[in-house]
Formats: sequence, structure tokens, C-alpha cells
Amino acid sequence: MRSLILALPALAALALPAAPAYSAEGMWTLDNLPAAMLQRDFGFSPDAAWVRHVMQASVRLESGCSASFVSPDGLVLTNSHCVRRCVSDLSTARRDLTLTAFVADSRDDERTCPGLEASRLVETREVTATVRAALDGTRGDTFAAARSRIQAELEAACVAGDADSVRCQLVELYQGGQYWIYRYERLRELRLVFAPEEAAGSFGGDLDNFEFPRFSFDAALLRVWKDGAPYRTGDWFALHPAGIAEGALVVATGQPGRTRRLLTVSQLETLRDVELTAAALRLAELRGLLTRYRAEGAEQSRLAGADLRRAENQLKVLRGEIEALHDSDLFARKRADERALRDFVAADPALAARSAGAWEAIAQAQAARRRLGAEYTQLETGHAFASPMFLHARSLVRAAAERARPDGERLREYSESALPALRQRTVAAIPFHPDYEAMTLAWSLGHAREVLGSGHPAIRRLLGKDSPHAVAQRVMRATGLGDAAERARLWDGGTEAISSNRDPLLALAAAIDPAARAARSAWESQVESVEVAQHALISAARFARDGDNAYPDASFTLRAAFGVRRGYEENGREVASLTTLGQMYERATGAAPFALPARWLNRRGTVDPSTPLNQVTTIDTIGGNSGSPIIDRQRRLVGLNFDRNRHALGRAYGFDETRGRNISVHPAAILAALEHIYMAPALVRELRAAKKAASRQEP
Amino acid sequence: MRSLILALPALAALALPAAPAYSAEGMWTLDNLPAAMLQRDFGFSPDAAWVRHVMQASVRLESGCSASFVSPDGLVLTNSHCVRRCVSDLSTARRDLTLTAFVADSRDDERTCPGLEASRLVETREVTATVRAALDGTRGDTFAAARSRIQAELEAACVAGDADSVRCQLVELYQGGQYWIYRYERLRELRLVFAPEEAAGSFGGDLDNFEFPRFSFDAALLRVWKDGAPYRTGDWFALHPAGIAEGALVVATGQPGRTRRLLTVSQLETLRDVELTAAALRLAELRGLLTRYRAEGAEQSRLAGADLRRAENQLKVLRGEIEALHDSDLFARKRADERALRDFVAADPALAARSAGAWEAIAQAQAARRRLGAEYTQLETGHAFASPMFLHARSLVRAAAERARPDGERLREYSESALPALRQRTVAAIPFHPDYEAMTLAWSLGHAREVLGSGHPAIRRLLGKDSPHAVAQRVMRATGLGDAAERARLWDGGTEAISSNRDPLLALAAAIDPAARAARSAWESQVESVEVAQHALISAARFARDGDNAYPDASFTLRAAFGVRRGYEENGREVASLTTLGQMYERATGAAPFALPARWLNRRGTVDPSTPLNQVTTIDTIGGNSGSPIIDRQRRLVGLNFDRNRHALGRAYGFDETRGRNISVHPAAILAALEHIYMAPALVRELRAAKKAASRQEP
Repeated sequence: MRSLILALPALAALALPAAPAYSAEGMWTLDNLPAAMLQRDFGFSPDAAWVRHVMQASVRLESGCSASFVSPDGLVLTNSHCVRRCVSDLSTARRDLTLTAFVADSRDDERTCPGLEASRLVETREVTATVRAALDGTRGDTFAAARSRIQAELEAACVAGDADSVRCQLVELYQGGQYWIYRYERLRELRLVFAPEEAAGSFGGDLDNFEFPRFSFDAALLRVWKDGAPYRTGDWFALHPAGIAEGALVVATGQPGRTRRLLTVSQLETLRDVELTAAALRLAELRGLLTRYRAEGAEQSRLAGADLRRAENQLKVLRGEIEALHDSDLFARKRADERALRDFVAADPALAARSAGAWEAIAQAQAARRRLGAEYTQLETGHAFASPMFLHARSLVRAAAERARPDGERLREYSESALPALRQRTVAAIPFHPDYEAMTLAWSLGHAREVLGSGHPAIRRLLGKDSPHAVAQRVMRATGLGDAAERARLWDGGTEAISSNRDPLLALAAAIDPAARAARSAWESQVESVEVAQHALISAARFARDGDNAYPDASFTLRAAFGVRRGYEENGREVASLTTLGQMYERATGAAPFALPARWLNRRGTVDPSTPLNQVTTIDTIGGNSGSPIIDRQRRLVGLNFDRNRHALGRAYGFDETRGRNISVHPAAILAALEHIYMAPALVRELRAAKKAASRQEP
Repeated sequence: MRSLILALPALAALALPAAPAYSAEGMWTLDNLPAAMLQRDFGFSPDAAWVRHVMQASVRLESGCSASFVSPDGLVLTNSHCVRRCVSDLSTARRDLTLTAFVADSRDDERTCPGLEASRLVETREVTATVRAALDGTRGDTFAAARSRIQAELEAACVAGDADSVRCQLVELYQGGQYWIYRYERLRELRLVFAPEEAAGSFGGDLDNFEFPRFSFDAALLRVWKDGAPYRTGDWFALHPAGIAEGALVVATGQPGRTRRLLTVSQLETLRDVELTAAALRLAELRGLLTRYRAEGAEQSRLAGADLRRAENQLKVLRGEIEALHDSDLFARKRADERALRDFVAADPALAARSAGAWEAIAQAQAARRRLGAEYTQLETGHAFASPMFLHARSLVRAAAERARPDGERLREYSESALPALRQRTVAAIPFHPDYEAMTLAWSLGHAREVLGSGHPAIRRLLGKDSPHAVAQRVMRATGLGDAAERARLWDGGTEAISSNRDPLLALAAAIDPAARAARSAWESQVESVEVAQHALISAARFARDGDNAYPDASFTLRAAFGVRRGYEENGREVASLTTLGQMYERATGAAPFALPARWLNRRGTVDPSTPLNQVTTIDTIGGNSGSPIIDRQRRLVGLNFDRNRHALGRAYGFDETRGRNISVHPAAILAALEHIYMAPALVRELRAAKKAASRQEP
């Protein structure tokens, strides 16, 4: 095994043929691709130009997705579900774009997605030594403060005064084993170009989510605009409708959001025994609430649609993670892996002196984690406040307070270099639905009261003697923050504007802020700082043993992952690696979630039913990879990643190549649907021209 | 330690003084009370007359609660939440008794609770040898069939043709280690006499549920009627408003529903790793759904109230159980306990030859349990069918089919002796709300589709190409089963009436029945029969080691449990064992769930604020004990059990006396409220006269 990270056991697959020689495991940083494996197994050695092109054609949506340029005119391909919030924001009660789809007939018709921003990674630089020096000798409180300081300092130096167009982030890899500065070009205006009907983009709904065979047209197009014109890029991936042969090498680039493969056993136990179940139960309840709300009418259905989908998706992931962590084989392997590394450390006196106590220190911090988790999650992470407008109010309150402090002493997300993007998001002209947000806020306040107890000081501060419903109604009906101009005025006015304002939502956010900050501070000093500092020691031991033959846990930063298109066996039957448009039509029953939009039914005769629609590959992806381009070694786009299958739901903790697969939309389906179903000839022309231009560029 | 069953570890209570010398652990059958402990620690030796009186004054509500006679005229005391369904059934859109309370001014005003039946245990007889002989040499399929046969035979003999007034049940104790025949007097008509407003009966709502200090008036009165007159009983418990001193012996009688303290480690792992989380997630979702539905209007609130409360209650229990099973100390103790018993078995060749393989056999059955659990739970237990009327339809379909078979070959719950009670329940004149039941059924069908997969044959059979919503609407809107007379006609008409009927709800129940029966059959032969047969061997080993110094897991059969009134320490503070009516008024905020009814507010001046309201004792209770009388050694009623505190939520798996407490309503509060708040002088007179009559009877 090349990788040191344990694979998930192939539970029900003992009868299958032996795994292939190479492993698709790994979400590799672009500075440390698995060169030996690529050369040995595929005869492929990507050069610097290849890496640079791949990096610069890849796009990160700050809302939590991946994407890529697909034309020199700034056209960006991502998933339909990644633009769901934008489609919802651009919809009205009279015109629900999730029902009608959106196709911009010309560039003038493209519509700005409020608050949506993207980034393109342009440079990475390791700063581990600098950060290590700044953190040296700190612990608890001083650790968190020192980390904030060095972060602000390094990011400010990288941004170099140009925060409007540059975004810099201190990136923590290997749970604190390495630090890097990533410099991004900010792509500040994204316009919606194309989004299918929800019924096509998420055909099969939550029922088919994380399932395969699959039949989803989960594709959408955005365009980056800059200074009133489409943005020009020298790097893009051209759609390659011929796709890729079974077994040939494919690569996904993008931002996997979060894996926990390097956690210690004690950390996994906290997740298994406490945290995941609590989170899942909360989401299940929210799901029930929103399900019923959507049934109350077309407008309610429209308002709650995006939130419900997100809750359902997260809930399925959590169910899969809970199942994975209750698999005793997985835990036995995790224990064995940890034992092996600890033995390696114990055998080396110098290493032992530094790192031997790390596992025990992390185990001891788990008691604090269990004790402080509820307050931190409810008050600071925001589980108590299921309302975008409340979170804007908090941003306004905090930004005013934080801007009055020196850069290095602020909460990390309010550092000088981060402010422009945060302001843009806070003042974006999103629609505000006070009744809907009052309902979700009332529910989350009630949930927080249950979790923390009705006598908790923070709950008393939030509710007084009122019910969650009364408080939520009061603040949502009276707030003026729904007006984006008012939010901009408050942001720009700083502490003076905030403190003289009597807006009830702002007042609520201000009233709870001391408690939220206290919960965060306790968490950072007693939990996070211990876990990060001790994991740095564990990482040092791992590097000493394995060299660079490892990849860091996912952190919503750019990675490349490698695999092949390949089916798998399930219940004794072979699952083919491709589905077709014809099969999608066959699966349509007319009843949601298997009801195809009228446009698809009407145009059925115009598309070749054998056109490939969805496909599976062995590539190691996870949430955040939604929208990732899947390319071949010639950098042609042969798939648009949008999901995993059920066997990959435990991927946060390990990788199973036997049956775990990622799922992508085939480029042939994208071109066919745009041409024949959505009748968007200009877009089809642009995509085809991009292919010609790209092929002229190829070396 | 007297008891062999492991206590839950007192996690956060290490600094407390040592536990008292006696242990309150144990839910004892009346044939095997802990005589030595009672004599040693309390100088108390209950004689046969004491036991007989306690047995015959105790009442079982077949809906799942406990209760007791409190007057010679058949007055029955139980919890307000135990009559919630009756109160709801007797309410209408224009008169919601959960809001107004119900007080029968005279016996003529008492109103029959539709479908509610009670039982009084009159005789128990051990039949272990007979059952063992019948089961001998059976396994799997033949085990389940043999058990059904011997059950029907023994019950029929006990009922002796008088099923209208006698109910007999074969009771399995010690997970199959003992079998008994319990003979009950059927109490077929219960009339509602008094129920408080929900806001008083469940003051504090779900938030205060399983919490203490507590301020709930969770009391209600029913009366048994027979042949058009109040039922006369020679055994009752008289309310003793002076209550009981701290530390003095108290006894609860009643029907604890289900504990799992004797399960093997492998069974506990199945619960921990799979079953409890799945059940909790389902309930959390249902809770969200019903929460939103209730918010839609007064009528919706009324219709969903009882279901929501039940879901919330079960959810809290499951959360507590999940927490308990993720406590590594508990699991370590369970492992050690199992190891000790296995070592004892291994040391005795004769015992080893019989029992040594039992644990491994049960462990192997867990794979079948995990594989078959979803189908069994969805289709047979009925998770897929969240609709009382669907379940009536199933009863009609099954009763017709089963009655055509010889008694010993039927599904167990359709044995000849069980039919009269089942018919009474099926044809009771309950209100039917088709839109509400369509909503809950649609939800549960959708949930089943998720769990089993949209391609599962049973799901295809249920839904065809329709949505769960469409199917549920179709059957609920068109069914004629809402009419109780129609259900009676169908029951009495048997197979002919059923098979010639075209009712869509009946058709749905009939269509899915083969799949449900198949799921049950697989479960019984591959899971249940193995677990029961092997546990009989484990029980034999335990009896060999411990004699009769043990109690069986709870099984909704009559038990006595012993303890004392005692507070406890929490977060370094002493929690007093009593709360008062005055404190309830202080806690009232005016906002639900802390809003007292108008009647309580208006009459505040008439009650002594120092009147005790709720109290805690160390008695070992669990769900099903709701409504249990708590009596002193003189058999005076000094409490009405209604809940446990949060530290007792893991009681299904072990007993912790350090902080775990049951919670009861004080009889002084019952009398004070009836007299001064509900102004029910006749009831107060009856309760006081019952006390005088009882004291004349005392030896």
C-alpha cells in the first residue's frame, strides 16, 4: 500500500477479485502529486505547465463548491445544485426558476448571483517554519491569539494592499503539520447563464442522492464578469463529448471540503459517541419541519426548497458517517494504525521526547470537547440561529467591533485581508422572507433551549420569558436589515452606526455576542489549540516515517485526485459505469421526485437515447468536490462531478475502492441537452469553439 | 451487591457520599419479591394478603400505562398523559378538552373512552416446564410455530371459554428463562371522569419532560363501568395527602414496559450501532413534521397534539438510551458481567455442555438481525404505516384470514382468547381525520421507501408509480373504514366480507400483507427464535449461579419496585425531593410550555402554595410505569408516578441510584386541585370516603 491512510474495509465484497495494483486513494495538494504512482501505473508524468494549467482552470465557489472555466470568455461549469441558492435568490413568487429553468439567450440576459463569489488559486507558498516559530511556546489562550496574529500578518503581506482583487489564506494541512499561504484571484461577479429545472438537475431527489445507477442532469453554467464585461481567461477545460474509456486515467480537481482520516482514535470516538448523532438528529427534525412547510403552498415550497435539499444531503452524509464509525472493523484498523505509529515513535528517543505524549493529550482534550461542544455549536457555529439574516446581523455587529482592533488581534475571519469579501457577502442584495426566517429561527432557538436547558444564561438572554416563536416573530417582522442598502450603511458606519441603531435583530445579535465569543474562546483554548498543537507533533512523526508519501485531510483547498472509470459489483450483479439519457426517460414516472419537466418530455424525440448521462469513477472525492471537473491527461473535460455513491458515504474516515465511486455528469449529455432540450445555440457554439481553441493550444 | 444486574456507572457523582446499604434496583414479579432485603433494611415482611391486595388494586391500561383503583366505586387514578388519546377522541373542533380540561360533575357526565380497555391481574401460574417440553427440539421456523401452538393452548385453557370477561397471557420472563400464565379480569368500559388542561397536566411540555425539579399536574381519573353501573372493587389504594417522609420505604406497582438489562453484549451492540439511531432519526423527523403541522391552525394543533407528545417522549428516551450505550464504562461492565457468567458456565461441565455456546449463537444471529431489521420494522412493526386507520384495516384483513385457521396455527395476537379484546379495539367509535392520517401515512410511506429503497418489491407493491402523497390521499379520502359500524360489519363478516370489499385502504393493507408476513416470518425464525432459545440457556446458567436473587427484564406485566423518597446532588447543589404548587406558579411565564391555564391563574389564591406538587423517589421505574401508584407499607397512596429524571434515561440498560429518580405527583396536590381549582366536590368526597373505608379495612 502506497498510502499510509487506512482504507475502509470492503465489508460485503470479500468475494470480489483482488483490488487493482494502484490505489485511487488520496486528495493530493498540487505541490505533492503522487508522481511515482502516476508514472508506474499510467506512464504519466504531469509537468509544471500541466499543473499550472489545471490549477488556473479550476475555480472555487466560495459558497462551498468546485467549478472550472470551460471557455476563454469566463464561462464556468458547475453543478445545478451548486447554484441552487442563486436560482432561488433570482426567483420570485411569480417566476420560480427552479420550476422553469433559466437559460440566458444572450450575454445581456445573464443575471448576477447576489453575494456569490469565486476564486482562482494562483500561487502557494509553504510557511510552516514561520508559523511554527510564532506558535512556539504558546498553549491554550496564547496559542489561539498567536495563531490569529501570524495569520493576519502573513495574509496581509500576501494581499499587499490589494484585497479587492486578491484573497490570501493561511492554510493548515495535516491537522497543523504544515502551513501554507494560498493566494487567490478574486472573481467577484458571477452571473447565472444556465440552470436546469430542479426536477432535471436533481432528478430522483433525495431518494436517488448518493445512489447509482443515477440519472441527474446536475449541471449549470455561470460566467465570471469583470468591469462590465465577460472575464477572459487563458486557462480552461474544453468539454470532450467522447468522454473517457473504461479504465483510463482521469483526474478531478477541486476543493474537497472536509475529511477526518488523520484523526486519532479518541477524536473519532467523540464523533461517534456524541457529535454526529446530535447533528443528525437536529437535521432530521429540520427536515421534517421543512417538508411540512413546503407542503403548505407553492410559495412555501419555493422558499424552503434550497434549505430542505441541503438538510437532506447533510443528513444522508451524517447517516453514512455514523454507520462508518460504528463499523468495528474500521475502528480496529484505526486502532492498529495508531498503535503502529505510536510504536514507531516510541522506538526513536528523539521523536518520543517530542511526540509520544500527543495522543494522550488529545484524548484528554476530548473531555473538554464533550463538555464545551453544545455551547460552541449552538452559540458560535450558529445552530441556534437558523436564519441568514441573523447571521448578517452578527457579521455587522462583529465587523464593527473587530475593525476597531489592530489586525492581529481580531477574530480570524475579520482580518483586514478577509474584510472585502465579507462585506460583499453581507451587503449583497438577497431577497428577505421575514415569515420564513422567523419560522426557522424560532425552531432553532427552541432547539438550542432544549440542548442548553431553559435555565442557561444565554437562553435567558435570548428569550427572557418569551417563547422562541414570539422572539423570532418580533425581530423578523420589525428588522430593517432586509434592505441591503441598510446593511451597507451599517457596515460602513462602523461602531457608531451599530451602537446608535435600535434594530431588534441587530440588538438580538449584539445581546448574545458576548456569550458566543466566550463559547468560542473556551473552545479554542481548551479544545482546538490542544488538538492542533498535538497533531503537529503526530504529523512530524508521520512525516519522519513516510516522507512525502501522504496527503493531508481535505480542507476546502485545491486538490487533485486520480482514478479510472469503472463499474462495481452489488448484490452479485455488475453495476455498469455509465447511464444514458434514454434510461432517465425510462425511469420517469410522472410523480416527484421522478417527474421530468415538461420541456424534457416534449423534446424527448430530439435526443439520442444512447447519449451517456452519468458515470462513475474511482476518484477519491467528498462534499465540496461538487462541480469538480473530471479531466483526462490531455486536460479535456470528460465529466462533471456531482455526487458519490452510498458506498462512499464513509469517505470522511477512509477510502474504499471496491465499491465506493464518485458520480459525474457526462459532457455529451451537457452538450446534447443544451442543444436539443434547452435550445441554447450560442452556449453550444461557445463550448465547441472553446474545444477548438484548446486543441490549438495543446502542446 | 444483592442484584446481579449491573448498575449504570455514576459518572459525574464520584464525589458523592457512598450509596446507601440497600439498592432500589429491581422490578420484581409479585411471586418473587426481594424479601430478605425488605426485612433486613426496612424490617418489612409483606404477607400474602398484602401482596394479593396490591395485585388486585393495581390496574393495567391496555394502551400502555399503569393505574390503580382509588375508591370502592371503581374510580381509577392514572396520569393525564395516559388519557391523552381518550381526551383527544372525545374532543371536537369546537370543544377541545385538552384546552378546557374535563370534569364530570356527576357520574352521569362521565364519558366512555373509545377503545380503551383495562385489566386487573387475578392469578399467575408458572408453566415453564410445559412450554419447555413443547419447544424442545424445535428451532427457527418450527420454534416459532411451536411457541404459537403452546401459547394458544395454554391461554385457551386459562380463558376457559369466558374471553368476554377474562384475558389470559403467556408471559415470557428472563428472556425465555421462565414462562407463566397470567390471568386478568377484563375491565372493558372506562369512562373519563377528570382530566386537567394539557397545559397543567404537562406543564413545561417536552422541555421539562424527564427533568426535575418539576411542576406537572399529571393526574387524571377514570372510572370502570360494568353493566351500566360503576364497578365495585374490594381492593383500592386510598389517597394519603400527608405523603411519605424522606427516607421511608415506598413501593410502586405497575407495568414497566421494556428493559434490556439481560441482553448480551452482541445484542447491545446491535442496538447501539444500528437500531436506536435509526429509530431516533425517524422520530426526530416526525417531530419536525408534526411541529410544523400544529403551527398551521387550532384544529391542526388539536389533531396532532397527542402524536407529537408521544414522538417527543420516545425521542428523549431514545436519546438517553443512545447516550447510555455509548458510555464506555457501561459497556466495560456489561462485558465483565458477561465474561463472569461465561466463566461460571465453563467451570461446570454439565452447564457448559448446555449453555456455553449460547452467547456465540446470539452473536451470530445479530447478522440476521441487522439484515432483516429494516423490512421487519417497516412492514411488520408498522413504521411504514403511521396511521391508526391503516392498522385497523390490517387487523380486519388479518383477523379474517387468521380466524379461518385452527387456533394454534394463527399469528399469536389472533389466538382465540385474544380476539374479543382485539375486536373491541378495532370497532371502537374513534374519530377519523382523513386529511391528517393521509399526511402521516404519506410521510411514513416516503420514509419506508427511503429505508428499503424505491426498487424494493414491497415499495413497488405499495406505491406503483405513484408518490407516497398520492397513494395516501387516495386511500384516506375514499375509505369507508372511518365508520366504526362498517369496521364491525367487516370484522363480523370475516373472509367473505373482506374479500368482496373494494375499500382502497383495505385493499392496500391486503396488498402488502404477504410481504409483511414474510418479513415477520423471517425475523421470527432467524432472529427471535435464536435469541429466545439461547437466552433460555443463559438464564438457566444465571439461575444456577444466583438462585432467585434476580428479577426479569420488564415486559409490561405487573411488578413491584421498592425505594425511598430522596433528593440528589447535581452540579454541586442539592436537589430537594419535593416541589410545591407555589413554585409551579412562580415558574409560569405566560408563554407555552410555561403558560398555566386561566383556571389555575384565577384560582391561585385558593390553594396553599406550600402544598407539595411533585416528588422524587429512588424506585426503579421505566416507561409503562406511567400512572403507577406509589404506596407506603400500609398501602396508602403517597404518589402517582409519571416520569423519570434525565439521569434515569439509560435505565433500560442498567440502574443508577446516585442521581436517577422517578417523579410522581403528590396526593396532596391532587386533592387540593380537585377541591379548589377544578371545584369537583363529589370527587373529593369520594376520595376522602375511600380513605375512611380503607382505614376501617386495615388489619
